[in-house]
Amino acid sequence: MSRSNLKALVFDAYGTLFDVHSVAELCDELWPGRGAALSQLWRAKQLEYTWLRSLMRRYADFSRVTGDALDYACAALALPLDDARRWRLLSAYRELALFPDARGALAALKASKIRLAILSNGSPAMLRPLVEHAGLGGLIGTVLSVHSRKIYKPAPTVYRLAVERLRAPARSIGFVSSNGWDACGAKSFGFRTFWINRADAPVDALGAAPDHVIRSLDELPGLIRVPVS
Amino acid sequence: MSRSNLKALVFDAYGTLFDVHSVAELCDELWPGRGAALSQLWRAKQLEYTWLRSLMRRYADFSRVTGDALDYACAALALPLDDARRWRLLSAYRELALFPDARGALAALKASKIRLAILSNGSPAMLRPLVEHAGLGGLIGTVLSVHSRKIYKPAPTVYRLAVERLRAPARSIGFVSSNGWDACGAKSFGFRTFWINRADAPVDALGAAPDHVIRSLDELPGLIRVPVS
Repeated sequence: MSRSNLKALVFDAYGTLFDVHSVAELCDELWPGRGAALSQLWRAKQLEYTWLRSLMRRYADFSRVTGDALDYACAALALPLDDARRWRLLSAYRELALFPDARGALAALKASKIRLAILSNGSPAMLRPLVEHAGLGGLIGTVLSVHSRKIYKPAPTVYRLAVERLRAPARSIGFVSSNGWDACGAKSFGFRTFWINRADAPVDALGAAPDHVIRSLDELPGLIRVPVS
Repeated sequence: MSRSNLKALVFDAYGTLFDVHSVAELCDELWPGRGAALSQLWRAKQLEYTWLRSLMRRYADFSRVTGDALDYACAALALPLDDARRWRLLSAYRELALFPDARGALAALKASKIRLAILSNGSPAMLRPLVEHAGLGGLIGTVLSVHSRKIYKPAPTVYRLAVERLRAPARSIGFVSSNGWDACGAKSFGFRTFWINRADAPVDALGAAPDHVIRSLDELPGLIRVPVS
């Protein structure tokens, strides 16, 4: 399989570069013993709400959806959420931890001269502090948000944003996500896709399987060869 | 609040009239002790796939999606699924149990002369045996499937199907679902909505809350008054 024609790599942010469950520790501090359950339900509802609002044509930005999902998860788990706790949890979402394998992989890829970008469900106001807090500004050249399209992944128009803004055809763009459904959505659109299967999960049956399935971002630089210019 | 102008009531099928978790018993017979976990994940993935395929514009009919979700759930839970077990489980999905409160409520509503319909994600080939097996043919006048729209709930075009086929404006149609997100989607479209909150769950935060929240279909006939003709 030829891998030599990739001009850019586009990364998902939440769950791929940034560990959404790094908030579990704070959740557990606020409600001892319930942190993992809250973090899991919060994330599940957050994604569900992005899909449902997209289908209902009721887009609201990702910070709103993230807050709504937190409210739901706390109510469902009978965890009392006051304004102070809500503020702390949503603030933590702007400073999510980078996965341990992310910085090294991005640095190696950057050194190989391939263009690096982020394409995320996050609104620009959420992504900016996240990328800054992790110190990724020098590694990632372009940060794209679904916000201008007013619909969430895996709608094709979102992936098309990368084609337009990077001025490169879909076939020359590699898309990297740890979210299996996002990797399928990107493959369905036409990108060469790399699914970082951190949890050793089955491939989602969505009619478009990822091209590459790897366990860690560490494996990515070895799979990518850039065109000789 | 005036409730006197409803001309028709449209019911969701899976989870509202029919208990999707009535397959849990068979699941448990096939994999002792794992039935509830399999049934929960199977249903969660089934819904997730309807939303994702709709957004990806890769519609596949509900029997395909239901089979795909079963495959995923068994793989994720490390439950070996052979052809015979798969066939038994998917056959059981065509004979799901009616909820105990469904028949009485439908009969009372039918006696009050309001028109009754089903609007379901199920394909016609799945819905026909389901309605027949439960003996609902004499109670439900119209069975509508998303299949002709090639997209799933909560896309507005699906709810519009009921307006077109029942030849009644959205404001004179009541929509009944036990799926909170479906009740929100129907409300967002413009129906008067009744959420049968069987599990005492929080209302989903999707920008369109159901008009009525009740615990059982038993409460529905008392809420409905039909126009005097």
